[in-house]
Amino acid sequence: MVIDCHGHYTSEPSALLEFRKQQIEVLDEPLRMPSSLQLNHEEVQEKLERAQLKFQRDRGTDFTIFSPRASAMGHHIGNAAASLAWTRICNDMIHNVCKLYPNSFIGVCQLPQSPGIRPENCIPELERCIDELGFVGCNLNPDPSGGYWKEPPLTDRWWYPLYEKMVELDVPAMIHVSGSCNPNFHTTGSHYLNADTTAFMQFLTSNLFKDFPTLKFIIPHGGGAVPYHWGRYRGIAQDMRLPLLKDLLLNNVYFDTCVYHQPGIDLLSKVIPANNLLFGSEMVGAVKGIDPETGNYYDDTKRYIDSSTILSAEDKDKIFSKNAIKVFGRLAGQIERQSHNSA
Amino acid sequence: MVIDCHGHYTSEPSALLEFRKQQIEVLDEPLRMPSSLQLNHEEVQEKLERAQLKFQRDRGTDFTIFSPRASAMGHHIGNAAASLAWTRICNDMIHNVCKLYPNSFIGVCQLPQSPGIRPENCIPELERCIDELGFVGCNLNPDPSGGYWKEPPLTDRWWYPLYEKMVELDVPAMIHVSGSCNPNFHTTGSHYLNADTTAFMQFLTSNLFKDFPTLKFIIPHGGGAVPYHWGRYRGIAQDMRLPLLKDLLLNNVYFDTCVYHQPGIDLLSKVIPANNLLFGSEMVGAVKGIDPETGNYYDDTKRYIDSSTILSAEDKDKIFSKNAIKVFGRLAGQIERQSHNSA
Repeated sequence: MVIDCHGHYTSEPSALLEFRKQQIEVLDEPLRMPSSLQLNHEEVQEKLERAQLKFQRDRGTDFTIFSPRASAMGHHIGNAAASLAWTRICNDMIHNVCKLYPNSFIGVCQLPQSPGIRPENCIPELERCIDELGFVGCNLNPDPSGGYWKEPPLTDRWWYPLYEKMVELDVPAMIHVSGSCNPNFHTTGSHYLNADTTAFMQFLTSNLFKDFPTLKFIIPHGGGAVPYHWGRYRGIAQDMRLPLLKDLLLNNVYFDTCVYHQPGIDLLSKVIPANNLLFGSEMVGAVKGIDPETGNYYDDTKRYIDSSTILSAEDKDKIFSKNAIKVFGRLAGQIERQSHNSA
Repeated sequence: MVIDCHGHYTSEPSALLEFRKQQIEVLDEPLRMPSSLQLNHEEVQEKLERAQLKFQRDRGTDFTIFSPRASAMGHHIGNAAASLAWTRICNDMIHNVCKLYPNSFIGVCQLPQSPGIRPENCIPELERCIDELGFVGCNLNPDPSGGYWKEPPLTDRWWYPLYEKMVELDVPAMIHVSGSCNPNFHTTGSHYLNADTTAFMQFLTSNLFKDFPTLKFIIPHGGGAVPYHWGRYRGIAQDMRLPLLKDLLLNNVYFDTCVYHQPGIDLLSKVIPANNLLFGSEMVGAVKGIDPETGNYYDDTKRYIDSSTILSAEDKDKIFSKNAIKVFGRLAGQIERQSHNSA
């Protein structure tokens, strides 16, 4: 089985985009906010068939762990109420996709974060998504300000109530920022990768996993800059007299394989244990084209893993599915439930 | 010849540290600011002998392109006048080292940046360092706010007067942030690497090098996350219908080799042309220890290049000196001048 741990709903129906446009237009007039949207179900299916479902079939992916478009979470837009309304709609859209294609998509939720608002504010929506919609994880934004980094670090007690709930529900979080409103940061070209690197270093310098030994995070985009600088991180930890990184962090921190060329995947699989890698492609996401050097899609990361001479068959099996089943504690049960419902 | 393009003065004499401490204590009382410091010349020499000079000898480095400690630039501390006073002292200290050891160190200056202050404010100090002190380049901080990223991107016309002067003087800049005062960012573990990645993506989405075809930047720390995600960047540029990265950026943008393990250096030299790599070690810098996996210092990056089976002898020659001579237009002349003066 091949499970892509990192897919966003980037082929949204026009009604969703229209909802958000209207919502942003009347941010200061809550009474004029749209409260629901009229889905064209044919459009939903057509767009998925042409994008995610086509690529799943072409590439041989069984399931995609699917969440709302990350760059559109826009936690910095409006207040907590606006964030909640938008988040609920987005999560409902994911649920709709998982019901339509129960053998292709498993849900992961956006959280109704808002700058300066305490993370426990996200718990009711997290519970709704896990308990009622059958989702298996969440995306956690370490910078709801959209590029100004005003929230406390992820290792601050500020975040602990949310972590307690995650542990209770047995769900991991993918660390994923949203669109950048800071002109210094290109959303997919630097803000995403910077956030990955930042989160890892926060974890390295904290006691977070002493406090939460079973808490699990996935750092996407191949871990940002981290595996490329693995020697730097090993050295920094050593200078700080910390344990080896594998003992300090690798029981709790995982990386996806969203690295869009063979040398990058080879580096990743050389330095990070296969037990800590989850297949991901972020499709359809940051890069849409075909690499003229290979003739294949840049984001067809399955090919790089298939082609790897560094990874054993057993490693590949872990990366393609076993690790995802381990990290997403509810995934195996949910796959079974969805397949029963579809039968 | 082996030229290390990235060394900071991290073995400063106590008088310099004391100066800065006093300056920060009286930031609001300019009249009480210290105006000079009393150097203990024996201490200066002893500390260099035990650190940079020892490592140069042990590792076979001829010259280090040497600049003030990056994390201590602290452009966010105090106002522009305080930044200028501190910057002049720091640059004078580098000049002192280059006079003491003219066959070992070549100067690169810190700039008196300050948040919100126009970059042309740095021109007099840049001219002083290049014309009077014989320096060959500068370190440019894209985020003088220290981790809040409030300045316009490096590609904004805000920075153009400084670039005009750099081109006129024929000096490159290393893009290098200073210490982070944002608790989200560890200075050497994330802020440095994030800035490298951020600057590269700013360049990618701009016309900067159409406006300044001879402007040259070195992105340190092996280019942050960039080489590891080279496929992502090639793909993003392609989706934006931009030219190939080698044509778009690689006549102006160079990477150093401050990557502290063999797999990282191998990745770097696989994906980035040897013409764009400058040997750097950042010693004595972010990582001070010995890697138990190799028995060598993490930051002894010369060993990784020496051991590379990917790079040819000609490539290594470029990386160790020829590219530095090309990028730092004044370097060859300055090496000759300093060696004459010492003769």
